[in-house]
Amino acid sequence: MARYGAAIFDVFGTVVDWRSGVATEVSRMYEAKGLDVDAEAFADEWRGEYQPAMNKIRSGNRGYVALDTLHRENLEVVLTRRDQLGLFSNDELAELNHAWEKLPPWEDAPQGLADLKQVMPVAPCSNGSIALMTRLARFGGLSWDCVVGAEIAQGYKPDPKVYQRSAAALGFAPDEVVMVATHNNDLAAARDAGLATAYFPRPDELGVGVKTELVPAQDWDVIAKNMIDLAQKLA
Amino acid sequence: MARYGAAIFDVFGTVVDWRSGVATEVSRMYEAKGLDVDAEAFADEWRGEYQPAMNKIRSGNRGYVALDTLHRENLEVVLTRRDQLGLFSNDELAELNHAWEKLPPWEDAPQGLADLKQVMPVAPCSNGSIALMTRLARFGGLSWDCVVGAEIAQGYKPDPKVYQRSAAALGFAPDEVVMVATHNNDLAAARDAGLATAYFPRPDELGVGVKTELVPAQDWDVIAKNMIDLAQKLA
Repeated sequence: MARYGAAIFDVFGTVVDWRSGVATEVSRMYEAKGLDVDAEAFADEWRGEYQPAMNKIRSGNRGYVALDTLHRENLEVVLTRRDQLGLFSNDELAELNHAWEKLPPWEDAPQGLADLKQVMPVAPCSNGSIALMTRLARFGGLSWDCVVGAEIAQGYKPDPKVYQRSAAALGFAPDEVVMVATHNNDLAAARDAGLATAYFPRPDELGVGVKTELVPAQDWDVIAKNMIDLAQKLA
Repeated sequence: MARYGAAIFDVFGTVVDWRSGVATEVSRMYEAKGLDVDAEAFADEWRGEYQPAMNKIRSGNRGYVALDTLHRENLEVVLTRRDQLGLFSNDELAELNHAWEKLPPWEDAPQGLADLKQVMPVAPCSNGSIALMTRLARFGGLSWDCVVGAEIAQGYKPDPKVYQRSAAALGFAPDEVVMVATHNNDLAAARDAGLATAYFPRPDELGVGVKTELVPAQDWDVIAKNMIDLAQKLA
């Protein structure tokens, strides 16, 4: 019998490579206009607006809106700062915003997830919406059982209600569910919310050779090399 | 290109055979005590409490609680009426309530769903909870993309918000999503809520030879023979 009732996953950075995926779409959209862009820098700048945008909701200064909407607003912030908002039509902005639905999984993710799904239910516990998670899964061949996370909790990680509502939605108490992430702060919040925790490193999340979180910051319940190894350790 | 952005499904009766599944578990639990029971009649009586229990929530007289809780309360109603509530321990009642997570799919459902998933996202839009839908899917080999329906809408069909929130959670306008059901009243409510509709008959839902809804009551957008045929018609 498996050690946990279900495994829930951080997605951006842990399961999919958001940076190269977003950069690919940014490149494509700029190239179509015959314009140069440092697409990786654009991706980093866009992602840089992610936490500040969610903070307004975490603090209660704004009601819950889906991450898709925040991504779109943040895109306009970045383009305005670059004095390039007028480059793209409304439809093109919408198309560019769909970049977040076309992120390649890390190489081990589809197989690791399929392996783990044989053992227990698996679901994203991401700040992304149900629509975003569903489209990402179809794009990358990720075999989730269902989608939990921000939208069903109407809030954003690391708010404890996101982890707790996600466990409850799967029919389990918090300590019966393991939260999987490559980010130590996500796991710290999950542990504070009562969940078990599992970590593996993603050394290339911020670009090859760019420093990221390579070591567990606490004695997480499971420490793995990647998602294939995780599936073996959780079996 | 497919005609709709996504397909959402009624589950009890449309995708799975709730009556024989519940009866199997009821038989097993009574036999373990050396007692006779008409398990199909028990299943019908248990299901008979389904609509009245949801009506309290639809009318606003009770806040949303998951169907799992209503099933458990209804089980106690049925057993009390039979003067048999004392037969089962609390753990046994919980085990019996899990009958709703062990319902066999109709024969064409797993393949039909897998076929349709190649074409568009598929999700249950049931009055069952996320946990219940996830467990049913794992039990029966049903390959959903995600789970929408009652829990994300915090209400029960035929409340229009259940259909509308489900479409929105998939990232679509109501008329971009097709609601699939064998029950004409479910489709009528979905149509009123702005969704497209698809119907096929399940002649044995209430038992072999028992009269059920065999014909479409309106000119539904798609009328199919079963889920394999539906997948072909929606492709």
